[in-house]
Amino acid sequence: MRTDPPSLLSLAIDSALLHISSYSDLSFLPEHILEDLFLRTLRAGKLNEKILKLFIATGKEEILSLIGAFNIQCVLTPVLPTISVRDDEVDIVIAAIEPDLTSFLEEWRAVFSRFHLIIIKDPDIKGELKIPGGFNYDTYTKADIQQIIGPSNAATFSGYSCRYFGYLLSKKKYIISIDDDCIPAKDTKGIQVDAIAQHINNLLTPATPFFFNTLYDPFCKGADFVRGYPFSLRNGVSCALSCGLWLNLADLDAPTQALKPELRNTRYVDAVLTVPARAMMPMSGINIAFDRELVGPALLPSFKLAKEGKFRWETVEDVWTGMCVKVVCDHLGYGVKTGLPYVWRKERGNAIESLKKEWEGVKLMEEVVPFFQSMKLTPAAKTAEDCVIEIAAAVKEQLGRIDPVFTRAADSMVEWVQLWKTVKTRT
Amino acid sequence: MRTDPPSLLSLAIDSALLHISSYSDLSFLPEHILEDLFLRTLRAGKLNEKILKLFIATGKEEILSLIGAFNIQCVLTPVLPTISVRDDEVDIVIAAIEPDLTSFLEEWRAVFSRFHLIIIKDPDIKGELKIPGGFNYDTYTKADIQQIIGPSNAATFSGYSCRYFGYLLSKKKYIISIDDDCIPAKDTKGIQVDAIAQHINNLLTPATPFFFNTLYDPFCKGADFVRGYPFSLRNGVSCALSCGLWLNLADLDAPTQALKPELRNTRYVDAVLTVPARAMMPMSGINIAFDRELVGPALLPSFKLAKEGKFRWETVEDVWTGMCVKVVCDHLGYGVKTGLPYVWRKERGNAIESLKKEWEGVKLMEEVVPFFQSMKLTPAAKTAEDCVIEIAAAVKEQLGRIDPVFTRAADSMVEWVQLWKTVKTRT
Repeated sequence: MRTDPPSLLSLAIDSALLHISSYSDLSFLPEHILEDLFLRTLRAGKLNEKILKLFIATGKEEILSLIGAFNIQCVLTPVLPTISVRDDEVDIVIAAIEPDLTSFLEEWRAVFSRFHLIIIKDPDIKGELKIPGGFNYDTYTKADIQQIIGPSNAATFSGYSCRYFGYLLSKKKYIISIDDDCIPAKDTKGIQVDAIAQHINNLLTPATPFFFNTLYDPFCKGADFVRGYPFSLRNGVSCALSCGLWLNLADLDAPTQALKPELRNTRYVDAVLTVPARAMMPMSGINIAFDRELVGPALLPSFKLAKEGKFRWETVEDVWTGMCVKVVCDHLGYGVKTGLPYVWRKERGNAIESLKKEWEGVKLMEEVVPFFQSMKLTPAAKTAEDCVIEIAAAVKEQLGRIDPVFTRAADSMVEWVQLWKTVKTRT
Repeated sequence: MRTDPPSLLSLAIDSALLHISSYSDLSFLPEHILEDLFLRTLRAGKLNEKILKLFIATGKEEILSLIGAFNIQCVLTPVLPTISVRDDEVDIVIAAIEPDLTSFLEEWRAVFSRFHLIIIKDPDIKGELKIPGGFNYDTYTKADIQQIIGPSNAATFSGYSCRYFGYLLSKKKYIISIDDDCIPAKDTKGIQVDAIAQHINNLLTPATPFFFNTLYDPFCKGADFVRGYPFSLRNGVSCALSCGLWLNLADLDAPTQALKPELRNTRYVDAVLTVPARAMMPMSGINIAFDRELVGPALLPSFKLAKEGKFRWETVEDVWTGMCVKVVCDHLGYGVKTGLPYVWRKERGNAIESLKKEWEGVKLMEEVVPFFQSMKLTPAAKTAEDCVIEIAAAVKEQLGRIDPVFTRAADSMVEWVQLWKTVKTRT
């Protein structure tokens, strides 16, 4: 149609499209012209509530069937949503494992400085926090933690887990957390990635957990749903968690890292995808974002290994937490995305030294994964808090007899939910 | 350890590693030296059956626990598998929707010419097949189809479905099929992709459907399993189906294509991933490969729309077939991969013209997807043939009352399995 010289009819439809907002009745148009006008209106991005009602008012069957098949629904705003979030809806939570955050924050200045930071100092470390000027932040130390949760429980927030104290205190809708040994990554064109913008985009666009789109995120610019994707599922669901990835030093366990000390992740996979419902994945806490209002209480510090250390490969708390969140999302009908954004992870630590500590985590995963894979919540669990309490009960009952670490985790999940509720009531 | 000047002990271990294959006993070594030697042997890729047995024979607990945790098992060949397939284990099946295959085959010459081609001429088209010289191929026409399956059923193999006749006649382990409107794609560096090599690699390396690896295919060069991935699942399972993707004209349905006539897929996502168990996806028949011995009978022509045409967006037979295969793979414990390789899809047809035909397919998907998502096979189904028969019975019972197209599909699935068995017995 586009390559032929335009017909008079086509020019007339163009003109109608130009003035579409000034019409109050379209029912006089023949059906085939109406159909053409409708498709052109859609393509031009001009279909809003008023114009949709005009087309519906014609009562023409072909038009109604088009509207049904595209699953176009009456809304008060234009049909294409605009993606935006106010800067004050976001907290960036940083766990300070080392007291000097100068070089870390300088690397991230362009990306972080618009947002409010919550910086939690690992209660185990000594020395004053060093934070360069020009950031909007609050810091919390061991004393603050003890004041809120009592001195005996401060250890819950040691090491990587100190960030959870920030999750607890945040009042924002969105929380983003990036490890302090990561700097911004560059994409395949060498352009620095804005990890915050990508995370926010992941959280604001729908997730599609109920059918796998082979072309990855259909809400990505230039992408769409593949042939065969049911139209009824194309609205998607709210995305509650966005898991980013890592270039350079990948998030491997200590044995793998020890076995392949030269291995670096250099593959930049330009994709975001929804992890399908009921599929479990190993979430890493290195580079994540989540909707605190939807699943905040499920991002919890509860799975502490006896010999947990200050290297990621010595911990599995985030992997446990990720499976909690995934089960909660599957139950409540939210989505989890993984993929972009990448961060660049710098070298830290000697994996061979960590090998002995890590075996416990590696062995426990053999029990943890099947447990979460078979976990079914009851219809009574209607909030993230409810879900966590149900999961904790199942952990205690099914895993508690295997290892005391699970009983402690279950108790700590229940305590966390109580703490979450107390803090929310207080503020 | 690497940056310090080497200790005498370290040099001694280096020397032991150099001569590791000449030792017949290692049990005299202290445990910490043995552990170091074991890790260095692994890293050097020197761990073979004989050396593994040497280490096991020491009986040292730390070594046995390392072997257990890495899930290293005794095999007869070196521990790292080498990926290769003989050229005569592969058939490339081409459905000739247009009789002149000259430009198509010339584009693919470098990639296809090593392999045997099975070319099936769409029984609906007229004119002699045109095939350039230098290829090793067999062609089949309407007369051949009628001879094998009888004249009344030849319509089953019309249009895109004619390729299934090639699947039926192939005796090779691996089948690869690419639509005749596709040419080789280029990767982000501008290098032409060898789609056959990538498909074969996807089929020969394990799939990991039971836990999602966030760094995509762990068997890809430079990749591995992410922290938290259970070691017991790292062996993976056999990959039965490899679904490739499309650059330029993506595989969209007619409404989407009509609505976004300018949309082209330009995003080259450099990744292969296993579709998790129990997640369904819309397989496209444009660019696929499969292991015929594992799932051949499940790749079947059965879901024909009344107004099915000669454009992909006018069909859903492959989407249906893909869900059959996925259910079969989930039941029999095989994996399905999606992602690389891409092909470049050329323009063909006018989507707006196809809109009227496509509505039926779009509407039926709303019934088809939930059906396959909830499909559970019984333990009695032990082969792909058994599985297809069970699925056909469920289709008839659960979907048959909704639309006669489903009853026809169920009948045709049963006929296909009979045909498959007959042809296999005969040859």
